[in-house]
Amino acid sequence: MSKLLIIGTVAFDAIETPFGKTDKILGGSATYISLSAAQFGIYSGIVSVVGGDFPKKYLEKLNLKNINTDGIEIIEGEKTFFWSGKYHNDLNSRDTLITDLNVLANFKPVVPKEFTDTDYLILGNLHPAVQMSVINQIPKRPKLVVLDTMNFWMDNTWSELMEVIAKIDVITINDEEARQLSGEYSLVKAAQKIQEMGPKYVVIKKGEHGALLFNGDNVFFAPALPLEEVFDPTGAGDTFAGGFIGHITKTGDISFENMKRAVIAGSNLASFCVEKFGTERMENLTHQEIQKRLLQFKQLTQFEIELG
Amino acid sequence: MSKLLIIGTVAFDAIETPFGKTDKILGGSATYISLSAAQFGIYSGIVSVVGGDFPKKYLEKLNLKNINTDGIEIIEGEKTFFWSGKYHNDLNSRDTLITDLNVLANFKPVVPKEFTDTDYLILGNLHPAVQMSVINQIPKRPKLVVLDTMNFWMDNTWSELMEVIAKIDVITINDEEARQLSGEYSLVKAAQKIQEMGPKYVVIKKGEHGALLFNGDNVFFAPALPLEEVFDPTGAGDTFAGGFIGHITKTGDISFENMKRAVIAGSNLASFCVEKFGTERMENLTHQEIQKRLLQFKQLTQFEIELG
Repeated sequence: MSKLLIIGTVAFDAIETPFGKTDKILGGSATYISLSAAQFGIYSGIVSVVGGDFPKKYLEKLNLKNINTDGIEIIEGEKTFFWSGKYHNDLNSRDTLITDLNVLANFKPVVPKEFTDTDYLILGNLHPAVQMSVINQIPKRPKLVVLDTMNFWMDNTWSELMEVIAKIDVITINDEEARQLSGEYSLVKAAQKIQEMGPKYVVIKKGEHGALLFNGDNVFFAPALPLEEVFDPTGAGDTFAGGFIGHITKTGDISFENMKRAVIAGSNLASFCVEKFGTERMENLTHQEIQKRLLQFKQLTQFEIELG
Repeated sequence: MSKLLIIGTVAFDAIETPFGKTDKILGGSATYISLSAAQFGIYSGIVSVVGGDFPKKYLEKLNLKNINTDGIEIIEGEKTFFWSGKYHNDLNSRDTLITDLNVLANFKPVVPKEFTDTDYLILGNLHPAVQMSVINQIPKRPKLVVLDTMNFWMDNTWSELMEVIAKIDVITINDEEARQLSGEYSLVKAAQKIQEMGPKYVVIKKGEHGALLFNGDNVFFAPALPLEEVFDPTGAGDTFAGGFIGHITKTGDISFENMKRAVIAGSNLASFCVEKFGTERMENLTHQEIQKRLLQFKQLTQFEIELG
């Protein structure tokens, strides 16, 4: 059976939305990616770092979902990465209130021996030097490498980011980041330029406006499911990426047709993530709920039209 | 064969975009709606008003496309409605520079006898009292009545707008207008509230982010085609609406399944409209070009996924 390796943060988040606020809860990109990918019944492992303050029960929760946490280094006497943010009324923008890097400041990722031959690899949003270090620890190239990044690394570590981008297959970024990375306003042109930088597949995330997948002349669009209530958008992008790579890992098929399904699977899972605070909805999601909503995605997008 | 009646403006536009600017060119909501609906080979008529300065050759251009212009009143010695606008660099927002109502200020629409039994009716964006006057001139209710409106009428003529909205079947508005009309931020909730006001079908236009169609528990989403270049967005919303009602008029089928196709047809035609200044692209569009791009819409949105 195929294995998936996930690199990213495992963190504490404190979130405020118009609907309420939380104390420190479980968060981090690797957490969301792994919980989403786990919906496909696959075996995955996380490479990350936490402090001695990180509850063991959180790791056990992940283990119960077939997520190996041997690669999560625990640094006793130090503190876990902490992020705190407050969303505006429209939930489309937020202010970061606190970013305490803590153990993340000196993170040196070590890929457990069991995962140095991983079939699939997803590099969650982190310093590109950290992402590169993980790529270099895997001697045989995985079947597919997915990279998530953000504007902060474009602003501050451009050349290191370019080196990583040259080595991966799929990049997931939002529309503004795609424009920044390419210098092109049109997303079609942006995707073309980004493909010239390395990744043959470009996924542009547009939040409530859906996601686009580009590969050469092929384009596919998945809408976000129109929801009555969005409660907390935290982790939606990582949940999308986790659903994408989880579907690919389960099926072992990296054709464009299957990547379309992976984009739909990711959009579907992201639609659950935003319904409750933090990881709550993702932890208790059932196969039946997922399938039911996939049917909604079909109804939302599928049509028959006569071509003459 | 079914007939379509179109009420709206026939106007001069002067447009400035980052790519260039025009002198006074042909514009107006009824113009764009009619050119779009004409792509379906149907027979339509316009009710509108122009001044003595309006070139006869423009009317002849419409007539050649099976658009009856007997309902366009010509007021000699007065001037045609004139709008001038300048788009910002991202083309998503614009400043109105000039709005000279001219003949539109005292527009009293008269439906030609030939169209008082029209099968389909579309009320382009105008004062709601003008829209209502047209409804009242058609004794037998058309099979489908579509209304386009905007925030200006919500701000200034709320109660008259409510009276018209209560009498129509399909409303087309943008996302911000849907929120204003309903007082709901969530578009799902907004569409529910708007359906309670009268129209059983709510189309929410999101520009480059596509369009949503709501009817009871049914939702359908059509993306905008990702384009390399958007040259001039003027008329895209009217072209969308014209494609929608043109498809319905041609097929005579007002089921939800067929309305999905109508939304795709409208999105498809709008994707051409924005490629050149004003009506230029719509005037010279071929059946083959339309069909080719419909195939692109299918490739953009269609997927096969296993539901277990």
